[in-house]
Amino acid sequence: MNEEQLILHTDKYQINMMYAHWVQGSQNEKAVFEIYFRKLPFGNGFAVFAGLERVVRYMRNLRFGEEELAYLRTQEENYPEAFLQALRDFRFTGSLYAAPEGTLVFANEPLVRVEARIFEAQLIETALLNFVNYQTLVATKAARVKQVAGEDGLMEFGTRRAQEADAAVWGARAAYIAGFDGTSNVRAGMLFGIPAKGTHAHSWVQGHESEDEAFRKFAEALPDHVTLLVDTYDTLKSGVPNAIRTARALEAQGKRMQAIRLDSGDLAYLSKTAREMLDEAGLSYVRIVASNDLDESIIFNLKAQGARIDTWGVGTQLITAADQPSLGGVYKLVARERDGELVPVIKISGNPEKVTTPGLKEAYRLINRSTGKAEADYIALRHEQDVRQGERIKLFDPVHPYIYKYLDDYEAIPLLQPIFMNGEQVYALPSLGEIRRYHREQLALFWPEYLRKLHPEAYPVDLSTELWELKMEMIAKFRY
Amino acid sequence: MNEEQLILHTDKYQINMMYAHWVQGSQNEKAVFEIYFRKLPFGNGFAVFAGLERVVRYMRNLRFGEEELAYLRTQEENYPEAFLQALRDFRFTGSLYAAPEGTLVFANEPLVRVEARIFEAQLIETALLNFVNYQTLVATKAARVKQVAGEDGLMEFGTRRAQEADAAVWGARAAYIAGFDGTSNVRAGMLFGIPAKGTHAHSWVQGHESEDEAFRKFAEALPDHVTLLVDTYDTLKSGVPNAIRTARALEAQGKRMQAIRLDSGDLAYLSKTAREMLDEAGLSYVRIVASNDLDESIIFNLKAQGARIDTWGVGTQLITAADQPSLGGVYKLVARERDGELVPVIKISGNPEKVTTPGLKEAYRLINRSTGKAEADYIALRHEQDVRQGERIKLFDPVHPYIYKYLDDYEAIPLLQPIFMNGEQVYALPSLGEIRRYHREQLALFWPEYLRKLHPEAYPVDLSTELWELKMEMIAKFRY
Repeated sequence: MNEEQLILHTDKYQINMMYAHWVQGSQNEKAVFEIYFRKLPFGNGFAVFAGLERVVRYMRNLRFGEEELAYLRTQEENYPEAFLQALRDFRFTGSLYAAPEGTLVFANEPLVRVEARIFEAQLIETALLNFVNYQTLVATKAARVKQVAGEDGLMEFGTRRAQEADAAVWGARAAYIAGFDGTSNVRAGMLFGIPAKGTHAHSWVQGHESEDEAFRKFAEALPDHVTLLVDTYDTLKSGVPNAIRTARALEAQGKRMQAIRLDSGDLAYLSKTAREMLDEAGLSYVRIVASNDLDESIIFNLKAQGARIDTWGVGTQLITAADQPSLGGVYKLVARERDGELVPVIKISGNPEKVTTPGLKEAYRLINRSTGKAEADYIALRHEQDVRQGERIKLFDPVHPYIYKYLDDYEAIPLLQPIFMNGEQVYALPSLGEIRRYHREQLALFWPEYLRKLHPEAYPVDLSTELWELKMEMIAKFRY
Repeated sequence: MNEEQLILHTDKYQINMMYAHWVQGSQNEKAVFEIYFRKLPFGNGFAVFAGLERVVRYMRNLRFGEEELAYLRTQEENYPEAFLQALRDFRFTGSLYAAPEGTLVFANEPLVRVEARIFEAQLIETALLNFVNYQTLVATKAARVKQVAGEDGLMEFGTRRAQEADAAVWGARAAYIAGFDGTSNVRAGMLFGIPAKGTHAHSWVQGHESEDEAFRKFAEALPDHVTLLVDTYDTLKSGVPNAIRTARALEAQGKRMQAIRLDSGDLAYLSKTAREMLDEAGLSYVRIVASNDLDESIIFNLKAQGARIDTWGVGTQLITAADQPSLGGVYKLVARERDGELVPVIKISGNPEKVTTPGLKEAYRLINRSTGKAEADYIALRHEQDVRQGERIKLFDPVHPYIYKYLDDYEAIPLLQPIFMNGEQVYALPSLGEIRRYHREQLALFWPEYLRKLHPEAYPVDLSTELWELKMEMIAKFRY
């Protein structure tokens, strides 16, 4: 993979803050940042974390080359050469922790934590958010589609409507993590090993004298991979009868046609009628693929109407996450070094949900040992031992603390894993197959009420008592 | 610029159609495809064409390398080596015509035309649509924002919420074409020469003992580039007073603070109050920058309420085109070679707007000589001479042909320009400055009624009588 140099894929203010720290001599002070989002997308009950492989590749390749330095030399800030030399010497020497890709994650819990010199931690904010926000968004959308499609086939078809080339390939990968079976994008196939599939377009049919000739010629060329698009002229009067003729010709050679594809019209009616026509022709093995601006709601409704569709091609709505095309993940400073010690910091806001949760923290997924199901996610300060040692803990709603209960018999699984420690990558990137398997295991950890597509029950993300008290104290200190 | 090899940034079915043509010996037949969209985005009256520079760079770099061929060798289709050799020899030898970037374009007219061997024309469909759809979408959204912002400053701030890295940089460029003044993305600055701007984040303030100290230290480091973010704790009680103190300290050194930035809360109230506070402190030169999920509607409403904002930072809503995150541009076969001649082809659909307009065509923008304004766009078959020679032509609505008029005194400007001819690039890519200037000239060509943000008048895109009759005849032939 010919990786682009993305070190300047950052906001200008990061460079200016790095410069100001460098001028003030504070560039080596340690800082702790967390990535989290405040609200689940699509009204879904969970999100599917994705983007870590992209983050790791980016972090490994993080160097200011002479081209970048030459560009910075042209900037109106007139950065001195000594600062540009500090950039030339830039290496990521900090630590980065993240949830594994495919993990089910929730609002207001850390997905990534960066502990590094402020000089380094500031630079990487923009790219990390860009990658994690988009890929998590698409993986979450794909999980919703997968939920309604069940065991039906699911293909990602969105490249032509994706928001530029990176979105197409990383979006295809995010969809595959969440259970899609393949993509139409050949480059995504090459880069990530995702099955790449495709047959023919309307232009193939238009390019021949007749639909019948077009189908016959396609089947001659690729007799083992025949899926015929039947809606160029008239699906039921022309497309399906011609496809049946082609399937019979293939049978005469001992071959089986794979499928027909519907790409317009009423997919419920057309699929049911086409299914009958195929079955009557003795072609019950020929499957039906459908596409045309599908999303999880349309698929859900078509299935409810008895549509006979075996494989769904999902494009625009998935690859752009059209009903909510951005995830609002943020990267917030939670602790900073002061006289050699890390001290918690907070950001206050008139919007209560924008107040940050201070301090160097760990997040745990608490699995109830008697049910095997996730009970809550629990965020504690790093030094808190009770949750690690499985002692009885109090779970309460951080907004309405009078709602509480105690939990005794649980396993506490850290949500974040070390990815880089002191600049060294310590995490072996799992294969996509492993990520898909892990994602399915994650789904099985949760009660179905949390996974429902519409109006799911809210899964609890709680703070430890000590952390909650720290937050309240710091808010009180900052109020005027 | 380290360009990635994007030749496999295509749908698998393109490769399979290329293969089927190769098997059938039809790979060298000429085909003509057009890119167009059927509906303007955002309810806008026009779109701003963008993406051509990306298309040109992609076309220049179009080679199957050994990595790509090795990948294709692994595919289940078992392509024979002779086909892979045909790919190894692949060069774009055709012609490509396109509207210049920044052109105002409309639904159902060609934006790009490809005339090439079917083998070549099919391969490039997916990437061309991907680039043109996204960049045209963002340029159009940006033009809407520019329209409400008028002479206010406009900054593109969306990288962290963009749909991956390519969207961030090409989206920043599209916004700049349509009148934005700069971007926060440093890489977009380096790649395209767009002014990259930025100051500091909340983390800068949180990283210091007090907001006052944070502002002072920032101003010490970058005294000529001080824009202070004033909402970390409390905008009016803390942020603005501390910023005023910093501005006075700068004045004592003979420097002028540039601006304050508001990033939360009620931007109308806060900007008006902050303006008063700054003016009372004798700091009327300090400008006010605002950000926080802005789009053209919010800016329009804030301005109507008298908000005192000088520069708008627009992020998520622009870079994702959030209210309609895809443009439905399509790439349709309009003519193909048959016995050495190009013959028109059509695609029929139960949805009337999905029926294609057949034939090898030219589109003209007709400028009324008496007003200097665009009267209509007019699509004719290539051989039609009357419009080129300025003869009297009939303009009629292609859906309701009883609505018609005649036009005599006009200039007919071809909408598309030759970009590649027989594989050679013949078009010199203009500079971004030239594209911006050209875009402003384009806007001046149209009556304001067509440019209105809400419920604009529909600008006519008409067909020549001969073309319209050809289309009707081909539809009639295909109806059952």
